[in-house]
Amino acid sequence: MASLKGNCVLAQSGGPTAVINASICGAVQEAMRYPEIFTGIYGADNGILGILNEKLFDLGQEPADNIEGLKSTPAAALGSCRYKLKDLTQSRDDYERIIEVFKAHNIRYFFYAGGNDSMDTCDKICKLARETGYDMIAVGIAKTIDNDLAFTDHCPGFGSVVKYNATAIMEAGKDTEAMYTADTITVQEIMGRNAGWIAAGTGMARRSYEDAPHLIYIPEIPFVVENFVQDVKEVLKRIGYCVISAGEGMKNAEGKYISEMGGSFGKDSFGHAQLGGVADILRGIIESEIKVKCRTQKLGTCQRSAMHFASLTDVNEAYMCGQAAVKAAAEGISGKMVTLVREGDGANYRCTTGLADLSAVANGEKYLPREFMDERGTSITDAMRKYMTPLLQGEAPVRIGDDGLPVYVRLQKHRLAPKTGREYSAGKK
Amino acid sequence: MASLKGNCVLAQSGGPTAVINASICGAVQEAMRYPEIFTGIYGADNGILGILNEKLFDLGQEPADNIEGLKSTPAAALGSCRYKLKDLTQSRDDYERIIEVFKAHNIRYFFYAGGNDSMDTCDKICKLARETGYDMIAVGIAKTIDNDLAFTDHCPGFGSVVKYNATAIMEAGKDTEAMYTADTITVQEIMGRNAGWIAAGTGMARRSYEDAPHLIYIPEIPFVVENFVQDVKEVLKRIGYCVISAGEGMKNAEGKYISEMGGSFGKDSFGHAQLGGVADILRGIIESEIKVKCRTQKLGTCQRSAMHFASLTDVNEAYMCGQAAVKAAAEGISGKMVTLVREGDGANYRCTTGLADLSAVANGEKYLPREFMDERGTSITDAMRKYMTPLLQGEAPVRIGDDGLPVYVRLQKHRLAPKTGREYSAGKK
Repeated sequence: MASLKGNCVLAQSGGPTAVINASICGAVQEAMRYPEIFTGIYGADNGILGILNEKLFDLGQEPADNIEGLKSTPAAALGSCRYKLKDLTQSRDDYERIIEVFKAHNIRYFFYAGGNDSMDTCDKICKLARETGYDMIAVGIAKTIDNDLAFTDHCPGFGSVVKYNATAIMEAGKDTEAMYTADTITVQEIMGRNAGWIAAGTGMARRSYEDAPHLIYIPEIPFVVENFVQDVKEVLKRIGYCVISAGEGMKNAEGKYISEMGGSFGKDSFGHAQLGGVADILRGIIESEIKVKCRTQKLGTCQRSAMHFASLTDVNEAYMCGQAAVKAAAEGISGKMVTLVREGDGANYRCTTGLADLSAVANGEKYLPREFMDERGTSITDAMRKYMTPLLQGEAPVRIGDDGLPVYVRLQKHRLAPKTGREYSAGKK
Repeated sequence: MASLKGNCVLAQSGGPTAVINASICGAVQEAMRYPEIFTGIYGADNGILGILNEKLFDLGQEPADNIEGLKSTPAAALGSCRYKLKDLTQSRDDYERIIEVFKAHNIRYFFYAGGNDSMDTCDKICKLARETGYDMIAVGIAKTIDNDLAFTDHCPGFGSVVKYNATAIMEAGKDTEAMYTADTITVQEIMGRNAGWIAAGTGMARRSYEDAPHLIYIPEIPFVVENFVQDVKEVLKRIGYCVISAGEGMKNAEGKYISEMGGSFGKDSFGHAQLGGVADILRGIIESEIKVKCRTQKLGTCQRSAMHFASLTDVNEAYMCGQAAVKAAAEGISGKMVTLVREGDGANYRCTTGLADLSAVANGEKYLPREFMDERGTSITDAMRKYMTPLLQGEAPVRIGDDGLPVYVRLQKHRLAPKTGREYSAGKK
């Protein structure tokens, strides 16, 4: 066991998931088992921003029910952020501030749940601490619906976003099948900025030719308008309707986002290119080239926060990652991210945790293997089904209130008094 | 008991719901109890189009599991349509064709699940049959997520669309709350063309000031840009983020759809005004007037076909409506629509069925009572909560496959050989 004794702080970063709070729940409940090591268990408001701006709260004062409730509460109960720290060599201010806050509150353990940017942050904090002689431990917890982190078989959050999205497109498929005489085509926009894991995951809904999604488009496979028109026409010829999963990060052969192809579409009101307009672009192509009515839908953040139909396997694994991070830290391990390790397939699927270097994870990205899609690149293969099936097993239980709706937790966030004696205003507009 | 003996046909019309198949299940299972009256139980492909084009199938040949499975299958398993019959005085062709098909197949009972257009169709068929001396019975089954049918306390399909939508916006709310430092405002577009029942229903998710939706906009209350900007600013001032339920049919004081206010937004690619762009219009206002980042999301048909989180009360009541329609017909009642009658409130809520004249239903519309919204018109009142709560109770069971996803039914549709000896091509493009 590590001899290092002090407070620990937990933080969440990047886009929320249905299960990132389950990781926090696992970490907090595990940390409570070692009062001789973790003297206080703190949370940071909105990720690294909460540390920079010294907005901390005491998770030890939360009612046990609230901590337990995190297991079935979506999004990021501590608060999240998209604040990106500059490189250490470029600007040390932020990093030095972090160490300053850690020192002031005797924070010796830092747990960060997030994607590769967060692992990069975590890694740099580690390095600066070592450099400046501040004794501390930092461990990352894999999180991202996009499933694009390297060194882990899959990411907590991924199973749930696919379970929900595949179900939603299955239901949209039933709807389009019923209404094809009026609304013939449906294009559904699926999250996934650089990797097609989620869009491909919706392919799980297709058990027969008639089932949606009939066509899937992902960022890794260049989108060719002519092929698209031909593929849609083929589906219409065979069954009379068509449902399309369009990955928001779809690109053409030049690597340009399809969402930037349109006129006013694809730009936000400030004129910035914005992902998320891809369904409307495809609708434009369909209505001009095929001349049938097309609906578009964009489930947005509802995709990643759909706790009401989350994967129980995913929840359990996310919890396990939080636990494992604390266990590793208690053993004195630092500079690592907890990974998920698949052992066995199908009915023999079992998952344990492993550890990967933060710096390696920070610089890696994992794309959908080409063999997970068929030759045409629009349907999934058995290899994808085999990979995906265990991750969708079970439905996470959710408490339902007297009003018939889910009951989720909001933390009380008992504030810690600031101790650094100076203001800092990172990320303030 | 009616002495009229013959075949019956069931048909579905208009936008699907999570529970319209449960009504068909109730009707079929009930009809099977009277083999001495209903000699054959048929389905029509895509509503009235299936009758006009003589595309009929034998529901009596479906495996019992398929019929039972309709109880938990969303959309419209028989197929639906948006085909609107002209007025009897203008064009009798379609109506005469319907009677021709009925005669050819000895169809003496017609059950039509739909909204007011469908009840109008049903009524006119009744009248023409009587006029031409063809002995038959027609009974309508209330269906619409919009909940805008008159003479019924609520419509099958409404409870489920609200249960799911309220949950989705609750989850989007948790997401926005977590991410407010990056994405501060979320506008979610909610179905409901002329009535604000569903958008108002999402208000059920708001148990405290911090909970989404913070602002609700419905067609019945004129939208005023200045008030909107002021309301959003007020919410931001108090909690720093804001989630908005935007009814797709929102109108301004002149009764013009807000979705038609935009430039390229609000029109489809043929230049037709199209509902469904309202969220982008609101985003435009927010980003130009308040200058904070705003997300939009549009769940589209996923709203109305979300069987995976449907209201059990709704499923049971939809089933009961199907049963009641067949019972009424077996008693010789014709020209009526089955309604839902509320008896008791809160824990004493009980629901039975009643009957209303088809012609009365066809010409009525039911808007959200003004007292169901607060004075400002942006939040629901206790009166709405009291009305809504019983309709959201229970979660409909769904069968989950080995792949971790719901298993829904697709009917085999054993075709009936055409008997009229002539082609008809209603609704063909």
